Amino acid sequence: MAASAEQDNRRGSLGRTQTHHVEIADGERPFRLDRGARLAPVEVAYETYGELDEGAGNCVVICHALTGDAHAAGHHGDPARRGWWDTLIGPGKPVDTDRYFVVASNLLGGCRGTTGPSSVDPATGAPYGLRFPMFTVRDLVEVQRALLERLGVRRPLAAIGGSLGGMQALQWAIDHPDELGAALIVCASSRLSAQNIGFSAVARHAIMNDPDFQGGDYYGTGRRPAHGLATARMMAHITYLSAESMRTKFDRRLREGRSPHSMEPSYEVETYLRHQGEVFLERFDPNSYLYLSRVMDYFEPFAEVDVAARLRGSPTRFLVVSFDSDWRFGTSHSRPIASELAAAGTNVRDVEVASRWGHDSFLLDVPEYHRIVAEHLTEALAARLS
Amino acid sequence: MAASAEQDNRRGSLGRTQTHHVEIADGERPFRLDRGARLAPVEVAYETYGELDEGAGNCVVICHALTGDAHAAGHHGDPARRGWWDTLIGPGKPVDTDRYFVVASNLLGGCRGTTGPSSVDPATGAPYGLRFPMFTVRDLVEVQRALLERLGVRRPLAAIGGSLGGMQALQWAIDHPDELGAALIVCASSRLSAQNIGFSAVARHAIMNDPDFQGGDYYGTGRRPAHGLATARMMAHITYLSAESMRTKFDRRLREGRSPHSMEPSYEVETYLRHQGEVFLERFDPNSYLYLSRVMDYFEPFAEVDVAARLRGSPTRFLVVSFDSDWRFGTSHSRPIASELAAAGTNVRDVEVASRWGHDSFLLDVPEYHRIVAEHLTEALAARLS
Repeated sequence: MAASAEQDNRRGSLGRTQTHHVEIADGERPFRLDRGARLAPVEVAYETYGELDEGAGNCVVICHALTGDAHAAGHHGDPARRGWWDTLIGPGKPVDTDRYFVVASNLLGGCRGTTGPSSVDPATGAPYGLRFPMFTVRDLVEVQRALLERLGVRRPLAAIGGSLGGMQALQWAIDHPDELGAALIVCASSRLSAQNIGFSAVARHAIMNDPDFQGGDYYGTGRRPAHGLATARMMAHITYLSAESMRTKFDRRLREGRSPHSMEPSYEVETYLRHQGEVFLERFDPNSYLYLSRVMDYFEPFAEVDVAARLRGSPTRFLVVSFDSDWRFGTSHSRPIASELAAAGTNVRDVEVASRWGHDSFLLDVPEYHRIVAEHLTEALAARLS
Repeated sequence: MAASAEQDNRRGSLGRTQTHHVEIADGERPFRLDRGARLAPVEVAYETYGELDEGAGNCVVICHALTGDAHAAGHHGDPARRGWWDTLIGPGKPVDTDRYFVVASNLLGGCRGTTGPSSVDPATGAPYGLRFPMFTVRDLVEVQRALLERLGVRRPLAAIGGSLGGMQALQWAIDHPDELGAALIVCASSRLSAQNIGFSAVARHAIMNDPDFQGGDYYGTGRRPAHGLATARMMAHITYLSAESMRTKFDRRLREGRSPHSMEPSYEVETYLRHQGEVFLERFDPNSYLYLSRVMDYFEPFAEVDVAARLRGSPTRFLVVSFDSDWRFGTSHSRPIASELAAAGTNVRDVEVASRWGHDSFLLDVPEYHRIVAEHLTEALAARLS
């Protein structure tokens, strides 16, 4: 309570932050993927906030979701445009940059500075496109571990992520049970439902059947599957919100000056979704969307043999959070994760937080959620120091 | 109860049925639309089952949903391929063709024999495309009333429909409060939510931004927005099912012979959705999809003035049915309809039926639902005969 009050008083935001780049694999030492393929070079874009302590024991790794990037907090010049998790990360915030050394990187397969399908394949001199090898959540973790090694971190204090980010925290804890002090798994799934896969399949259909997709080799042609990607994003955006939050935000309000009875957008919710689709095009590569959505479909860590045995005796403190209005990866997804972890004898705390904002809640300033994250990291640090 | 048992014993299916066509408006007597435009000619495709009684008092009107047509029951040559509501309509079935004269027609704006955007505009000699006038649920009702007049029916015993079909039954009862013995409103809405409109907006975005859309004038060009329409259908199909029914049907089963880790469909749910998209292309016009989805967005009958006053004293017996797993137009949509009707002093029965199959339940043989529909029609007929 005292710590929490203290935090509130000095709660602030990071100033200007910067994305760095490092090569974690090259032709001499290629990156070996989970399914056998070798990849080189592998460049990683990352940001760090705060200072690494002497024992390199205070590192919190930020794992991003489907469409995130390395720019998790602070700003790149315009203080009004802040990193995607700036609500959570900063001085006095739950991921407190006065206490933790925070590392956020762009995922393998992404398009924001880390090697992915839009990168040039040295074997051909052309972008990979759909020739980029299939990868898994395990690979996403290993690329981040290679980055941490460069930064002098062997045992991160914690890995935290929402959605696909939470899947990485979970996989990390399973694959390296002695490494993490804490794994914070927020609105994630260890087993996508048929409905989840169905929405992803429609998104991929929209992208891959856009005539401008050109089999994935649209780079440099002056055409890209923009309409397909925008459609995919608009649909996905609906699944990130709750019906209730959409009602609160938009209900049936008409766009100013628009009369109804037209095929063009006339409701505010229509122009909002269209805007979401358009701004997404500026920052995202359609092939990265395909690969990273597919990685989520295939993620099913507890279907592997001996997971419980691997986890037994792990010092990792698990926090599994869901939001009650999340219909994408809600409590029906988080509870099985917590059950599997508990069955393996791990230290797991399972919390359903009330929030009307659906899946997107993990990006928002939901006080109970933020309090629990802060507590969990504080306890993990105390356990490591004790 | 005795009637119900008797029904079960003689329950059967209609044999071969046939679609007829009639012109309900022409250049001399154009059809006047709700919003003022005049339309001619208007042809209507329809089917009838059973016999009209002497007083023309046993007519049950079937109002179809977004993608239905006039072929509601029986078959057109292949007994294995039956009309879309064959579960409900037939000898001894809830809409009992031994007792009722059943009329099913294709909606205005449709593409299955009734005038719509794919019809030729006599003013130009070319298909209307997006020059087809905007219309409302009120117009859908009036076209059906004009058809009934041709068939000698002035006061139908009942109008019944699911989804957009239920909206028509409701609008009919409001606009002609002395006409219907019963209005059966199944999983409908009187006010689409922001989420509902959002999904429709994404569907329209997919169709209208398909390069083959050509501003709606794709007829005769050898190209049509097939990919956009398939994407729209696949997405909509997910909203017709419950997450639970998708789990029951597909869970995470892989398609036989398919290994995962490919961008092509490998899960059964993916190939199922793709198949749904493909077969839909064979029978549906993209412009009809745009118009009929837009009609649903704009439907808000209780926002009109004096609706309660118009309904006061109406003899219509209302039945409002929802299914507990329907997340498209579930009980949160049906209950406000029932409340408005009750507040207007009408005779209304409001039932939530347990069914795991989501919005699609209205097309399926859900025993409690079928029993209630049968009862409601029986009571309406008894009231009319008494």
